[in-house]
Amino acid sequence: MLTYSFENKGSDSLYEYLYKQIKKDILSYTISAGEKLPSKRTLAKNLNISTITVENAYAQLMAEGYIYSVPKSGFYVSDISSKKTPQKTEPSKNDILDTHTTTYFADFVNNSTQSNNFPFSTWTKIMREIMSDMSEKLMVRSPSSGVPELRQAISNYLYQFRGINVEPEQIIVGAGTEYLYGLIIQLLGQDKTYAIEDPGYQKISKIYDANKVKSVHIGMDESGIDIKTLESSGADILHISPSHHFPTGIVTPISRRYEILSWASKSPDRYIIEDDYDSEFRLLGKPIPSLQSIDVLDKVIYMNTFSKSLSSTIRISYMVLPKPLIAKYNRELSFYSCTVSNFEQYTLARFIEAGHLEKHINRMRNYYRGQRDAILEAIKSQPDFSLTTIKEENSGLHFLLEVNTKLPDETLISKAKGNGINISCLSQYYYQKDRTKEHTIIINYSGLDKIHIEEAIKRLYKSLW
Amino acid sequence: MLTYSFENKGSDSLYEYLYKQIKKDILSYTISAGEKLPSKRTLAKNLNISTITVENAYAQLMAEGYIYSVPKSGFYVSDISSKKTPQKTEPSKNDILDTHTTTYFADFVNNSTQSNNFPFSTWTKIMREIMSDMSEKLMVRSPSSGVPELRQAISNYLYQFRGINVEPEQIIVGAGTEYLYGLIIQLLGQDKTYAIEDPGYQKISKIYDANKVKSVHIGMDESGIDIKTLESSGADILHISPSHHFPTGIVTPISRRYEILSWASKSPDRYIIEDDYDSEFRLLGKPIPSLQSIDVLDKVIYMNTFSKSLSSTIRISYMVLPKPLIAKYNRELSFYSCTVSNFEQYTLARFIEAGHLEKHINRMRNYYRGQRDAILEAIKSQPDFSLTTIKEENSGLHFLLEVNTKLPDETLISKAKGNGINISCLSQYYYQKDRTKEHTIIINYSGLDKIHIEEAIKRLYKSLW
Repeated sequence: MLTYSFENKGSDSLYEYLYKQIKKDILSYTISAGEKLPSKRTLAKNLNISTITVENAYAQLMAEGYIYSVPKSGFYVSDISSKKTPQKTEPSKNDILDTHTTTYFADFVNNSTQSNNFPFSTWTKIMREIMSDMSEKLMVRSPSSGVPELRQAISNYLYQFRGINVEPEQIIVGAGTEYLYGLIIQLLGQDKTYAIEDPGYQKISKIYDANKVKSVHIGMDESGIDIKTLESSGADILHISPSHHFPTGIVTPISRRYEILSWASKSPDRYIIEDDYDSEFRLLGKPIPSLQSIDVLDKVIYMNTFSKSLSSTIRISYMVLPKPLIAKYNRELSFYSCTVSNFEQYTLARFIEAGHLEKHINRMRNYYRGQRDAILEAIKSQPDFSLTTIKEENSGLHFLLEVNTKLPDETLISKAKGNGINISCLSQYYYQKDRTKEHTIIINYSGLDKIHIEEAIKRLYKSLW
Repeated sequence: MLTYSFENKGSDSLYEYLYKQIKKDILSYTISAGEKLPSKRTLAKNLNISTITVENAYAQLMAEGYIYSVPKSGFYVSDISSKKTPQKTEPSKNDILDTHTTTYFADFVNNSTQSNNFPFSTWTKIMREIMSDMSEKLMVRSPSSGVPELRQAISNYLYQFRGINVEPEQIIVGAGTEYLYGLIIQLLGQDKTYAIEDPGYQKISKIYDANKVKSVHIGMDESGIDIKTLESSGADILHISPSHHFPTGIVTPISRRYEILSWASKSPDRYIIEDDYDSEFRLLGKPIPSLQSIDVLDKVIYMNTFSKSLSSTIRISYMVLPKPLIAKYNRELSFYSCTVSNFEQYTLARFIEAGHLEKHINRMRNYYRGQRDAILEAIKSQPDFSLTTIKEENSGLHFLLEVNTKLPDETLISKAKGNGINISCLSQYYYQKDRTKEHTIIINYSGLDKIHIEEAIKRLYKSLW
């Protein structure tokens, strides 16, 4: 059994000291690779400290790759010798980022959902059922736009939970919204100008760039996209997320929505891509009707994803095309095979039809509300809370924290990093850099582990001045 | 029990007559919707005809939607009244094609593999194992290029069975080759000119068109792509399938392969996309080394798919990028999420590592050899065989049938259609239309049901003069 004395812990917190001691023992091979660590409870009892302290120390060791967990068994020491062996090919920086091996104590930039919230047993139960029941259908090639069962399930779901009334035939299923953006570009034209929000989700801009289509960045006011700038930009296609803008959190009010539809009505080439990526997780108040549901001129392409509501490892998204565009899609692009496998299409269809999606979203909404409340509480209990302001905390899975500080954003970010906290600032999401936008931190809380919240916020506040 | 007298069958074959009688009874509601038909064996015994005759009649009724089969139960009469009810939204023509509801007795155009050959129980067994064993990993986001386990498995497989030696890090996994073509265009540039084979697989041309990139069609001689035309075309990227060209069946010899590599070496912008889609199914002789394996200048992008070797409903393909391009991919495009779900990536990785892919391919190679032999035998037994010539029957899953006839190809196709047979002609795959290419029919045999072969070839030969 590991035994440590806390006499020499100095200014370290109990958990920091414990983490350092175990790490030292792993690095010196005092505890060897593959060795099982005592359970959190046992170690806590033995050292006469709280289980939470051990939990935090283990979490930090795990985040840094020194130990790993085996479900229903416990924690084991990693083979750290392999860490020093150079790899044949250096993995790219992006690969590293992708696999989330970067070692932060808490990551407020990562917006992927927590894997342990995924209804894994229900999902796999249905997948097993599908494999037994539908062996014939599973082997029949899916139509380009997705299997009818899934499109029907999505259509029913949209009608019941988003008030969106569309025919299943208008729905195109694809392996992620990023793939669907590519299809939209092929559908609407590479020669069109695409307007995106400034600030905005950087990936959207990257996708237009990678496809070498012209994009313009349109500034926003407190109601959303600025119509005058939009009018004068020469844009044909407007790509927005009016139900919850990232990163500002703005919810576009109905009056501005009509202005946007009016802009679209002025030319036959104009279309709106309504990206409704996290509308399910609105935490307070009545949702505002989607642009799609008040569009009578067939101008809105509505899109959403199950990667946000279920798991980022489930690659299923969809878009709803207005009828003239679905005709064009069928004519010009339906030669493409559907990118989602039948196994997952049928599983998702049954998952939705049996009411599991609704149940899961309700459960997650409660979970995120608890998550948000815990973070807000932790923030409010900080001694320096009065120097910060919380904004836009009622919608979606992130909010903003305005900080009254003299430090430039780069310094905030690097100080936070030094404390094991990954943050991003609103200013980073502006295409037009503007120092007046500084000092606002984006708090993505969907991927954060609850047990880390208090410590994470404490470390964050340590980094702000 | 259905009882029919065959006295008035006239010139119809037994099976045709039986099919017509049952169809008439269904249309007149003498047999009603949902009613179970006698088993093939019982009906055959009762009518004193062979089981094959009943089988053919049922197959035709099923193809036309009059009856349907329930696994382990039998054949049932469809609700034909619903056939007359108009649908809310007319499904598009392409949707119909996609779902393969077109009613042919035999389809020599469709090149999708037969679903009952898919190792369904092994695949689902592994998928179940993966769901139990890897619940944690399944919830960790895949790197953009695919999970390491699958890339490692593909790398091992390529080394053992294709003599291709690549690092797992060079492999990019995606949901179908069509998706990967789109990535290649983004990687190499929309401003480049892409050379494709003429004749060629039409979808490739469609994808370049949909992405609005310039493509040029390069003629072929008996060794493959014509180098002089290629040199003068101004093309930067050459997209070819040298191991087995569709539809001509040409296998590019090693001398021409070196000429192609030499062409690529002459400019830093030049690259070759080597599409090796059905190389696994070479039926005779030693395979010629892939372009990738003799390329020392990092000019070849090798791609292949599991949709061909496993099932068209499994949407997993991959490409191997030369190292400088993989660096570019990681820099510029790895922000894209991987389009294949973790469930299927891990399942395929284990399927390959456990040797099931190899076993399956060997089994299928035997199956297709049997299939091809049965078709060749049926062809050779036709009274008019001497007016036709079989070509390129030793590689891949199709061959050519040259016909000595005066009928133009359009007439051949429509006559065959009248006989329930879907065919395509070599001339249709030429970008530059040329009447001298007429009278060659493409026989895709991968999707054909063995019990239909004899009848299908008989009907085909009825349509040729």
